[in-house]
Amino acid sequence: MAAAAEIESFDKLVLNALSGPELEEFNRIYYGRPNHHALPIKLSTTECAKENNFEVAAYDFPAKKEEIRSSRVVRVGIIQHSIVESTDKPIVEQRQAIFEKIKRIIVAAANEGVNILCFQECWNMPFAFCTREKQPWCEFAESAHDGPSTQFLREFAVKYGMVFISPILERDENHGDTIWNTAVVIDDQGKVIGKHRKNHIPRVGDFNESTYYMEGITGHPVFDTKFGKIAVNICYGRHHPLNWLLFGINGAEIVFNPSATVAGLSEHLWAIEARNAAIANSYFTCSINRVGSEKFPNEFTSGDGKPAHKEFGHFYGSSYVTAPDGCRTPGLSRVNDGLLIAQMDLNLCRQVKDKWGFTMTQRLDLYAESLNKVVKPDYERQIINKN
Amino acid sequence: MAAAAEIESFDKLVLNALSGPELEEFNRIYYGRPNHHALPIKLSTTECAKENNFEVAAYDFPAKKEEIRSSRVVRVGIIQHSIVESTDKPIVEQRQAIFEKIKRIIVAAANEGVNILCFQECWNMPFAFCTREKQPWCEFAESAHDGPSTQFLREFAVKYGMVFISPILERDENHGDTIWNTAVVIDDQGKVIGKHRKNHIPRVGDFNESTYYMEGITGHPVFDTKFGKIAVNICYGRHHPLNWLLFGINGAEIVFNPSATVAGLSEHLWAIEARNAAIANSYFTCSINRVGSEKFPNEFTSGDGKPAHKEFGHFYGSSYVTAPDGCRTPGLSRVNDGLLIAQMDLNLCRQVKDKWGFTMTQRLDLYAESLNKVVKPDYERQIINKN
Repeated sequence: MAAAAEIESFDKLVLNALSGPELEEFNRIYYGRPNHHALPIKLSTTECAKENNFEVAAYDFPAKKEEIRSSRVVRVGIIQHSIVESTDKPIVEQRQAIFEKIKRIIVAAANEGVNILCFQECWNMPFAFCTREKQPWCEFAESAHDGPSTQFLREFAVKYGMVFISPILERDENHGDTIWNTAVVIDDQGKVIGKHRKNHIPRVGDFNESTYYMEGITGHPVFDTKFGKIAVNICYGRHHPLNWLLFGINGAEIVFNPSATVAGLSEHLWAIEARNAAIANSYFTCSINRVGSEKFPNEFTSGDGKPAHKEFGHFYGSSYVTAPDGCRTPGLSRVNDGLLIAQMDLNLCRQVKDKWGFTMTQRLDLYAESLNKVVKPDYERQIINKN
Repeated sequence: MAAAAEIESFDKLVLNALSGPELEEFNRIYYGRPNHHALPIKLSTTECAKENNFEVAAYDFPAKKEEIRSSRVVRVGIIQHSIVESTDKPIVEQRQAIFEKIKRIIVAAANEGVNILCFQECWNMPFAFCTREKQPWCEFAESAHDGPSTQFLREFAVKYGMVFISPILERDENHGDTIWNTAVVIDDQGKVIGKHRKNHIPRVGDFNESTYYMEGITGHPVFDTKFGKIAVNICYGRHHPLNWLLFGINGAEIVFNPSATVAGLSEHLWAIEARNAAIANSYFTCSINRVGSEKFPNEFTSGDGKPAHKEFGHFYGSSYVTAPDGCRTPGLSRVNDGLLIAQMDLNLCRQVKDKWGFTMTQRLDLYAESLNKVVKPDYERQIINKN
């Protein structure tokens, strides 16, 4: 669905131009290590990916052997995908077509031994918030506990013993049909163990999200799954270092950032924010962006003085994973569906904390005291005047 | 002073390999804009730089014209440099040699109309904290208000009407000869308008800084100079998002990050953290790192199990500037002295806040409340268990 002019990937741009020691230097400075520690992928997976037109890549983040703790190696998968049907089709058809596509990628992930799998923001629908229309898009909203997407994934959770993070539009019937932007966490036995609702909501360009849902009230939960302690920072929350911080304080070892963001607005920020969070908080971050462009039935404007149009910009994919030491994988494609697998030894989180000491030296008492003052209406800024 | 194997710059690695539309795409995704908005440099400046063996580069960050506010264009300069004399020379000689080198770069900056000039961390001395020896290194510590470095710079401040940020080792005679890592701010009339003491102190590898000085107690001051509201986040403070946040809350439009950091430890983090801070807080950040390697008279160890040695790793320079919209300049050299000039319209800060809304949506009340709980000794983390 991408325009012909879109390049396939940032990483390949460089890979095609550099080689030998120069490529190693680029890799060392940019990605954090001279080679990517790529893992082999089974032939059956590669064939499945080729047949179904998605990319698969896998990388390793090992940790040092410790004397007292055993290593804790998990395989995390993240999926980026475009929508399937055109947005004027009945919404159940649209959703079902996405389910069918995703099913094939889940099978590939299971074949590669993935333990935890996360999708992009609102993975089961087009990103229709550009339209400001409530109908039919609000009909995609569903119960976190037993909506169609949760039901769809529970089956695979049981079948493959896999943990799923499912970012959906949630309808909260218990509270006046409030709509939330929510990530549902389904454990390896198919049980919904909890959910997190997006804490920070954009009001920028085509991202009229405050029109649809409110700031989350679930705090900063960390889900203690069979495979590690995980949390979810949904999309725009990646711009907020305090949001990342609190997930770290609560013990997260992996924080997923399911997103939907477009070229022109954010592409030069994409490689920075989740990676910075991994560094600052000594945990793994997994950045997932949808891919392709999406066209809507009716015209909308983008709040930028330009004429009305029907097409969202280009969702540039480029999903990637960062380790607590700041090393990262190459990104997935800018234009195609993909499955990125990161094998990680979670012991690396504490090893990096012990080495760098960022969390130990962060002086939270100082900042708690400062923020208490800052939020008061009569806060006087600490400004030293020239005279 | 750099080893022969060091590449000259990350940016040139790519510039030499890509061209045309591919280079533009790289630039757009990596730096945030297809071309660098390089500014012309006077022939007299170029000649001075050539003669004295330093690099000069200048870039522009314009803002949109507004109806009510006039544009507020300032020229900021940052200087990276290696030490001059060997570290076994008398310390006054070592310092004086650095003064002589810096004088020539200051003159070049003045020739280019720079308004605010900032140096690297402890710019007037070798970065001797690797040694854990107190003598003679503590003798470099000086009064912020009238020490030799402040006196040296006041003269140029008056002569050129320039604001200086001078990161030094401070000796605080009023308080038991406490040593601090301090940035002194000298205004365009040669007056010391204040100082900031480093808030976060590393204890990692050769950075035995907690051996020499304590965590700063000056809060997060913003200095309201003739040319804009500025703040200083010294070196290791760049790893702490809350440190960056408070400077933003107090109104900083430009935050300088004078640093000293080496390849192997942090080079893959260098392009991430200050840039993330610019994005998260909608201000300009100026990242300055020293350059070259430094050899000390006596052996020291690096706390990494390796044999004792006399040489610090390679300080990789690569100083750069980021705008509030996340666009950045190329870095200075990894191996040579340099002066980087950024012309910036400070109106861009508020324009980006109005567009993205990161500061408006950051929910500081939520985090003040959370941190109050977090810092209590009996804090219970928000962990949702699988059972």
